[in-house]
Amino acid sequence: MHVNNEIGTIQDIEEIGKICRLKDVYFHTDAVQSFGKLKIDVKKMNIDLMSVSGHKINSPKGIGFLYKRSEVNIKPINYGGGQEKNLRSGTENAPGIIGIAKALDIKRNQKQIKIQRDKLMKELSKIPGSRINGSIEKRIYNNINISFYGIEGESLVLMLSKEGVCCSTGSACSSHKLQESHVLKAINVPPLYIHGSLRITIDKISDQEIKFISKKIKEKVEKLREMSPFKLKE
Amino acid sequence: MHVNNEIGTIQDIEEIGKICRLKDVYFHTDAVQSFGKLKIDVKKMNIDLMSVSGHKINSPKGIGFLYKRSEVNIKPINYGGGQEKNLRSGTENAPGIIGIAKALDIKRNQKQIKIQRDKLMKELSKIPGSRINGSIEKRIYNNINISFYGIEGESLVLMLSKEGVCCSTGSACSSHKLQESHVLKAINVPPLYIHGSLRITIDKISDQEIKFISKKIKEKVEKLREMSPFKLKE
Repeated sequence: MHVNNEIGTIQDIEEIGKICRLKDVYFHTDAVQSFGKLKIDVKKMNIDLMSVSGHKINSPKGIGFLYKRSEVNIKPINYGGGQEKNLRSGTENAPGIIGIAKALDIKRNQKQIKIQRDKLMKELSKIPGSRINGSIEKRIYNNINISFYGIEGESLVLMLSKEGVCCSTGSACSSHKLQESHVLKAINVPPLYIHGSLRITIDKISDQEIKFISKKIKEKVEKLREMSPFKLKE
Repeated sequence: MHVNNEIGTIQDIEEIGKICRLKDVYFHTDAVQSFGKLKIDVKKMNIDLMSVSGHKINSPKGIGFLYKRSEVNIKPINYGGGQEKNLRSGTENAPGIIGIAKALDIKRNQKQIKIQRDKLMKELSKIPGSRINGSIEKRIYNNINISFYGIEGESLVLMLSKEGVCCSTGSACSSHKLQESHVLKAINVPPLYIHGSLRITIDKISDQEIKFISKKIKEKVEKLREMSPFKLKE
């Protein structure tokens, strides 16, 4: 995984690729969170296979691609019409394909987004009983993952959604499960923080929006704290 | 297959379903060409599983669904986020899902489309050395499959495409292969007709469009005949 989908931390895939090549094993990387955002050099990084999803780079949903080094042989998992060189049968989603290509043309001011992300992260860090999860330095520019002690992240997400602030707890995949994030567990986030975690991914946002978002999150965290059996020790 | 994807013929899936139930085997039907067009009663027809594709009913591409009778157990072919009750991992294509639902609201005047289809079919049948493939009676209202002796269907499709008339040879799936249609072969269409086959699927079209389409097809067929080594015996 080039960039972790929950905490946005960047893995040194070039180093991983080097080891894979030395040991003569194939290297597949999930670049869903990094493609179009970080520089990826498949040759230099010894990437054999790379998965990309369009909706992370503002393309329509339902489209993505698998990069395959031409020398690598893979087998299809479905059969039928034989489209895409027999690797993925099914009528090609032409508008989606054009959409993902077009999405790549969208220029992002990464520096500016990072500045705004940092401002928002700083604001949220002021909330008592909070902690930023994962490395701040080795982190993609658009991700915040923050935990609030003693509250239920799912409730927080629902409350924020009503106010027009859309975020998630861990990965979007787990939004219907009430499982602990295996990522936060792996980096030793204490249990009473894990459950109150919030993942925020931003694109271009204004100072006004930062103010609104942090105000709403602060309000809701306080409200949930009042109901929580786990009181924050001052 | 409820409706054949090449020649539009309707199979008696109720009868097939009955046999399957009697013999205690699961019945899966490909209803891609029929869903939203023909009446499907999964209970009455003893359908256990049914595949539907959105783009055949004017929904966005890249979306479809599998109907599964609740008692039927199936295994996923991909793993990951556990979406859709663990049966199909991957972020749900929400706009697509809404799109396919919305597409079902589009009312079609099937009788009117059939009238126009019949007019177009009649016009095309006048072209010398042509034959309609598949039953006319047991056929979905929007399909024409016609063969022209001694020409290459692929060339015809390309020529028509330049004129704004979009159709295909056999199934769209086979449009990149130069294989003979297994469907036309199975119904004993003579080889020199199989290669010159054209599949036309229509929605609402005007008399003017019918005139334009048949004129263009006639022109192109004549042009290809001139170049063909297989001369039509008068």
